[in-house]
Amino acid sequence: MKKQNFSEWYHQILEDAEIIDMRYPIKGMLVYRKWGLFIIRQMQRHLEKLLEESGHEPCLFPVLIPDDILGKETEHIAGFEEQVFWVTHAGVNPLERRLALRPTSETSIYEMFSLWIRSHSDLPLKVHQSVAVYRYETKHTRPLIRGREFLWNEGHSAHTSLKDAKENIEEIKKIYGDLIREFLCLSFRINKRPEWDRFPGAVDTFAFDTLMPDGKTLQIATVHNLGQNFSKVFDIEFETEDGKKEHAWQTSYGPSFGRLLAALISIHGDDKGLVLPPKVAPIQVIIIPILFKKTEKENKDILDYAKEIENKLRSLDIRAQTDSGEEHPGAKYYHWEMKGVPLRMEVGPRDLKSRVITIARRDTGKRSEIKFDDLGEIEKIFSEISDNLRKKAEKKFREGFFKAKTLEEIKDHLGEGIITSGWCGKKDCAEKIEDVASILSVGDSSVRCSVCGSSGKEIRVAKSY
Amino acid sequence: MKKQNFSEWYHQILEDAEIIDMRYPIKGMLVYRKWGLFIIRQMQRHLEKLLEESGHEPCLFPVLIPDDILGKETEHIAGFEEQVFWVTHAGVNPLERRLALRPTSETSIYEMFSLWIRSHSDLPLKVHQSVAVYRYETKHTRPLIRGREFLWNEGHSAHTSLKDAKENIEEIKKIYGDLIREFLCLSFRINKRPEWDRFPGAVDTFAFDTLMPDGKTLQIATVHNLGQNFSKVFDIEFETEDGKKEHAWQTSYGPSFGRLLAALISIHGDDKGLVLPPKVAPIQVIIIPILFKKTEKENKDILDYAKEIENKLRSLDIRAQTDSGEEHPGAKYYHWEMKGVPLRMEVGPRDLKSRVITIARRDTGKRSEIKFDDLGEIEKIFSEISDNLRKKAEKKFREGFFKAKTLEEIKDHLGEGIITSGWCGKKDCAEKIEDVASILSVGDSSVRCSVCGSSGKEIRVAKSY
Repeated sequence: MKKQNFSEWYHQILEDAEIIDMRYPIKGMLVYRKWGLFIIRQMQRHLEKLLEESGHEPCLFPVLIPDDILGKETEHIAGFEEQVFWVTHAGVNPLERRLALRPTSETSIYEMFSLWIRSHSDLPLKVHQSVAVYRYETKHTRPLIRGREFLWNEGHSAHTSLKDAKENIEEIKKIYGDLIREFLCLSFRINKRPEWDRFPGAVDTFAFDTLMPDGKTLQIATVHNLGQNFSKVFDIEFETEDGKKEHAWQTSYGPSFGRLLAALISIHGDDKGLVLPPKVAPIQVIIIPILFKKTEKENKDILDYAKEIENKLRSLDIRAQTDSGEEHPGAKYYHWEMKGVPLRMEVGPRDLKSRVITIARRDTGKRSEIKFDDLGEIEKIFSEISDNLRKKAEKKFREGFFKAKTLEEIKDHLGEGIITSGWCGKKDCAEKIEDVASILSVGDSSVRCSVCGSSGKEIRVAKSY
Repeated sequence: MKKQNFSEWYHQILEDAEIIDMRYPIKGMLVYRKWGLFIIRQMQRHLEKLLEESGHEPCLFPVLIPDDILGKETEHIAGFEEQVFWVTHAGVNPLERRLALRPTSETSIYEMFSLWIRSHSDLPLKVHQSVAVYRYETKHTRPLIRGREFLWNEGHSAHTSLKDAKENIEEIKKIYGDLIREFLCLSFRINKRPEWDRFPGAVDTFAFDTLMPDGKTLQIATVHNLGQNFSKVFDIEFETEDGKKEHAWQTSYGPSFGRLLAALISIHGDDKGLVLPPKVAPIQVIIIPILFKKTEKENKDILDYAKEIENKLRSLDIRAQTDSGEEHPGAKYYHWEMKGVPLRMEVGPRDLKSRVITIARRDTGKRSEIKFDDLGEIEKIFSEISDNLRKKAEKKFREGFFKAKTLEEIKDHLGEGIITSGWCGKKDCAEKIEDVASILSVGDSSVRCSVCGSSGKEIRVAKSY
């Protein structure tokens, strides 16, 4: 799609492909429909598997958090208090104390960590949950990108040392990298957020930013080093090997499933609609029988052949479906291309005769032929599709990198991607930059400040969602 | 366990086996931990698979429902209004209208059904979602049995005729039957609730009741025929084949994952702890190396053999784990029996020498030997374990059936199971029965009323959770 039409294209495909329904009567809250939900389910299961293999325990905490617990860490509550939905009544009676809909679960989880952690042998403790969280966004809401109820997985850990906590951060970066790059075929850059843009209560925040087709960056996941900030207020103490008491070192992290889905749709999509990587596609192969209605017998043979192909693919654990509806094949091609199905199989009289199948790839549009007996090689084609999507996404991402030496040059490239520039380190210069762009990260390389000219740190800026 | 100690036993095993943590600082809200959550995940995935195979689309609706929508169906809101948690504020500001935490989702889902359904060709429409729902229970809360946040799957359908709606009810009864009997190895009886105990807004309610070890019945799932009650107030209309407008016929249904877990734990469990059916067990086979510490070499060989067994089992998609911790084998047996692992494998020097494995079944305690090369037959043993659990549960269930001719006889058997008796059909007699017991169902057989002596309908009563 053209960059200019991105917003319109995006809203249209969300509706046409049955990803979500935006007509629910609460602003910023969506109804997830089967096509979108299936993709989220796939990414959620993959992530949960990776987290559990790395020693995370699944857990599930209540959606409600008592106000005194949400308020324990002062920076944390200051960061969220404008955004909290409050439950104040049950039935016709007011509650004795207000209960918050979780905006994130550090406070409720760490309240229990303080009961679960006694000794160094209880550590590391790593848990995760896939849940919805609630934030009353006052900014303009956008479907899947900025809403008031959003789906994510949140991980939380406690360690005996800062070193272990930092190692966990590196492991999580790898796990999220696997999810985003290997599984979803998307590109990203990890940006260390400036001090004033950290998660409320964190010592350091690392964000995974990707680049949307309109040139804006989208934060799809974050990882936080919490230091001992929370363990001190929540009394998360452990006895060390030599019998001393110490506060645990903590990290927390989460990718947004909604934003990952938004990125997946937008970055891989084209004018025909969705383009789905095979691993997340609800239907991986759509089989279209080509019927000429010469004789009943011939049509039946073709439908039987289509069914045989479907059964063969299903026995190989491939999500295959035959579309034997009444529409013209061309209408079916159009529909399933819009839905992003990675591979189409066309089955006509000639295919049947030679026991072959005509296949068409959604990502390249290329058609070729495969023998029925070679269907076992479809996984190889899926790999090629994924590789191709990954490569295309990486190319687009790379094309969005710019360098700027002045504030004017930053403005020139705004909305085109991620711009590397300089910043002296002073607040008023940062504010001038922030007047035009979001600061994604402050790095360690030494460059000239784009605003005042004095030498300072390298920064990365962009127009951001 | 002994019936008298049931409540104590139940609370202890929930804690010991890491099913849940009851110390979360909101009454009636639980923290689910890995062992319990894994079991719920297994049952949820099995149910979702069955529902999707029968044409249900997965969906996910917001947790919040605007008060005017929740209140559209008057009987429905009358049934729930005492139990609704209300969100009234966002940040520091009051909301323009109150938002309810869903106590169930008929109203929010049907608000969208009215947009999705236009023609008979849109029907049947069947959707399901696995979510938490919220009810401010004023009765005594009990972990997993009666809480203020509980996990379930809810299904909702719309049809062109009452006949189709009723057929769907029969299909759902089969699906829930599969989940409860085949998958979880539990017994149940479907009871048609009396008029005054129907789901608010329903024409008919069918409940799945099981029997707990303390002789009380537990409602684990319900299926409702909603008639056109909701479609009329939510304007769910379709155009018939001959161009007329008609209101859809609807059904809704849901099993409680928490209650199913409570039943699973309580009915299969024994004095040693949990007894889990293989299909839901987080670990299906625990491998215990028996080390005599004669030589390092011998111990290493045994550990290698244990690992070889574990790998072999995993390659067969069996959830196997080796416990190579420092504890004495006896302590490990004790621990994993408490956790309910269906099969233990003991691997010592003699087993290694003959390439055999000593196995012990959790359900019977019986020990036997299996050859390494026969490990492929473990699934058969799992089937036998499931069959045995199913049979034992059915036997206990059958032992809880009683007949009573008088109110005194009902009282005699109360707390022992399900009592069949008579009821003349008059309200004051029903009230006298309800003074001592819950009426589970009113059937069609003709019997003598246990209270007044005149002839009437058969009823089933019990002490209920």
